[in-house]
Amino acid sequence: MNNLFANRMANVHKSFIREILKVTADPKVISFAGGLPSPQSFAVKDLADVATKVLAEDGRNVLQYSTTEGYLPLREYIAERYSERKGLEVDPDEILITNGSQQALDLIAKVFLNVGDRVAIERPGYLGAIQALSIFEPMFIPVPLQQDGIDTDLLEKALDMNEIKLFHTVVNFQNPSGITYSKQKRLELAEIFKDRETILVEDDPYGELRFAGEDLPSLSNYLPGNVILLGSFSKIVAPGLRLGWICAPEDVMEKVIVAKQASDLHSNYLSQRIVYQYLCDHDIDEHIAKVREIYRNQRDQMVSSIEKHFPEEVAFTRPEGGMFLWVTLPEGVSSLRLFDLAGGENVAFVPGSAFYVDDGGKNTLRLNFSNSDGDEIEEGIKRLAKVIKDLLAERK
Amino acid sequence: MNNLFANRMANVHKSFIREILKVTADPKVISFAGGLPSPQSFAVKDLADVATKVLAEDGRNVLQYSTTEGYLPLREYIAERYSERKGLEVDPDEILITNGSQQALDLIAKVFLNVGDRVAIERPGYLGAIQALSIFEPMFIPVPLQQDGIDTDLLEKALDMNEIKLFHTVVNFQNPSGITYSKQKRLELAEIFKDRETILVEDDPYGELRFAGEDLPSLSNYLPGNVILLGSFSKIVAPGLRLGWICAPEDVMEKVIVAKQASDLHSNYLSQRIVYQYLCDHDIDEHIAKVREIYRNQRDQMVSSIEKHFPEEVAFTRPEGGMFLWVTLPEGVSSLRLFDLAGGENVAFVPGSAFYVDDGGKNTLRLNFSNSDGDEIEEGIKRLAKVIKDLLAERK
Repeated sequence: MNNLFANRMANVHKSFIREILKVTADPKVISFAGGLPSPQSFAVKDLADVATKVLAEDGRNVLQYSTTEGYLPLREYIAERYSERKGLEVDPDEILITNGSQQALDLIAKVFLNVGDRVAIERPGYLGAIQALSIFEPMFIPVPLQQDGIDTDLLEKALDMNEIKLFHTVVNFQNPSGITYSKQKRLELAEIFKDRETILVEDDPYGELRFAGEDLPSLSNYLPGNVILLGSFSKIVAPGLRLGWICAPEDVMEKVIVAKQASDLHSNYLSQRIVYQYLCDHDIDEHIAKVREIYRNQRDQMVSSIEKHFPEEVAFTRPEGGMFLWVTLPEGVSSLRLFDLAGGENVAFVPGSAFYVDDGGKNTLRLNFSNSDGDEIEEGIKRLAKVIKDLLAERK
Repeated sequence: MNNLFANRMANVHKSFIREILKVTADPKVISFAGGLPSPQSFAVKDLADVATKVLAEDGRNVLQYSTTEGYLPLREYIAERYSERKGLEVDPDEILITNGSQQALDLIAKVFLNVGDRVAIERPGYLGAIQALSIFEPMFIPVPLQQDGIDTDLLEKALDMNEIKLFHTVVNFQNPSGITYSKQKRLELAEIFKDRETILVEDDPYGELRFAGEDLPSLSNYLPGNVILLGSFSKIVAPGLRLGWICAPEDVMEKVIVAKQASDLHSNYLSQRIVYQYLCDHDIDEHIAKVREIYRNQRDQMVSSIEKHFPEEVAFTRPEGGMFLWVTLPEGVSSLRLFDLAGGENVAFVPGSAFYVDDGGKNTLRLNFSNSDGDEIEEGIKRLAKVIKDLLAERK
């Protein structure tokens, strides 16, 4: 059926990440390639208890078809938490439960993107967003990240020069770079988008995973009603439950519901009931504090291992939260070549070019610290340092 | 953000069914409108047991991210069952786990449909398919159903006159009509599609729910490698778990995997593990036999109530399986008007025009029998009969 595929499928790259993850299936390999939360962070026993409870108490409903929008008490909980944590006024009807925030990106693309529409994204950008949006054949306009967020001058220029329909941003502990937008950058963004028609998608899967510095306002705080906010239970409860959400103004939500219904009717109802019961019966803030502690230790270990072992000419970010750290090799040194050499030493990462929609990032790489323990991090970074040194020596 | 929506959203009707289901939320209403399985058919206790088991024995994995294709042992099970039940040779790598078969339709549309591509569907057709495919802006070509399946003469003419990319069919206990394709029709379809490039999508969510007559071959038996086969655990295990699958040749599967990854990474992993464990620990055939028995009784009740109460000029189908029965009022009598009148008597159904992409079906309606008990069916049909008689009397 080869000649029958839709045009859109020609534009979609075979996933580089999927190929890499195959390499890392070998248990000898220390992998900093994936984006997996620490399994130590899952409240397995508590989740098992609430699963038993909801099935025992309300099994016939829990197993039945449910509403497209998602379980109302769960949406009310999310709205309430936005109000408490961020001072955002959100109506539960402005929230729809998705299969992880990946599906939220798919729904947004469905609802908004015509072929050729301009979409501004961070450079480097979140691969999941690039993949979801690519299916709908937009033209990407990548705007460089600086240490404290996007280059707002270049973003404004891009907006002035192009009719940009949508801007996708991860303001907290960005994937892949680990960068967090400063308060100043957030204010600048609010100023830039205040009088524009462009849709601002604030993708915030890691926002609660801050282990250093202080929480900053959401872009929604500055631009209420202008932002589509995405959230996820994958990192604060568990990713295998595949639950995220999209928070959008009512006129958008009306279309999102139609798109969601056409896509898969509704999200897994058992999971929704489990997560809601878990939030009722357990202290999520206490749990998140534990998760943060685990990630802080892993980040600290990776930063100190890098400081100890990497050559000084290699730069890297020190994230205040999330799961990733970004490494920049000296100009002209290829991380793709590094990836091949690292394979020989049984250590893996994602070459940075995977996160660029243009030709950039060839000397960069992403390291995940949340799915390895302290010893693995130290050993993996040591192995990586050796290969980096070999590669740098080649140049001389 | 009203003027920013993608063109595709303009083509998508606000779901009539969603509006109807709101009406039926009133507990006074006896509803034959939905498409819900009988909650009596859920093995609640067994599913609770296996949920507890998989979380206790392998919680940290069960809650983690998983593969896009789906849990391999579950895919192996499905392949094995195709072989045993239908004599189909399927490789587990030709199966991908979806969020119900609704998502399979979305993925097929993503992978194959360009704007304006011709898609042949049954008339009346499955609403979920119409919704999923509509998002990708095809041109529908509806081909009438007869008592024993699609009108193959008209289908062949349509295929000869148009470049039809895809044909969607529900050969067993079709939704909405309840019709099952005869063996003869299946053979004719095989003959028609043998040398064509058109993709044949055989959507089979109800195939195992046959309670009368005998199982017939799948179109895949006649056209191995040419058919995309869709299946679902919604009706044989439980819909709240949102698990279905797509079975497609390897070259198609490669694209489907890319589309699935972009859509939501992977299906709910906890549910996949629960269903697989359930299939291992319990006798699914014994369970399905029970479900069939429940549905057979409900169908028998509805058929006998209709025979007793409906005027003779009203025709209806006697399905051999599935969940729906199709009613045809005399020409010129409007089921939309009947729906309004039925509201006054607290009984609901879906007016048939919801299942037509053209102007047809105005004198038809769909009745669901799987979600009401015997007394409700008798009482609901009695109420409906009264309104039908009133409506027919108006004409005279």
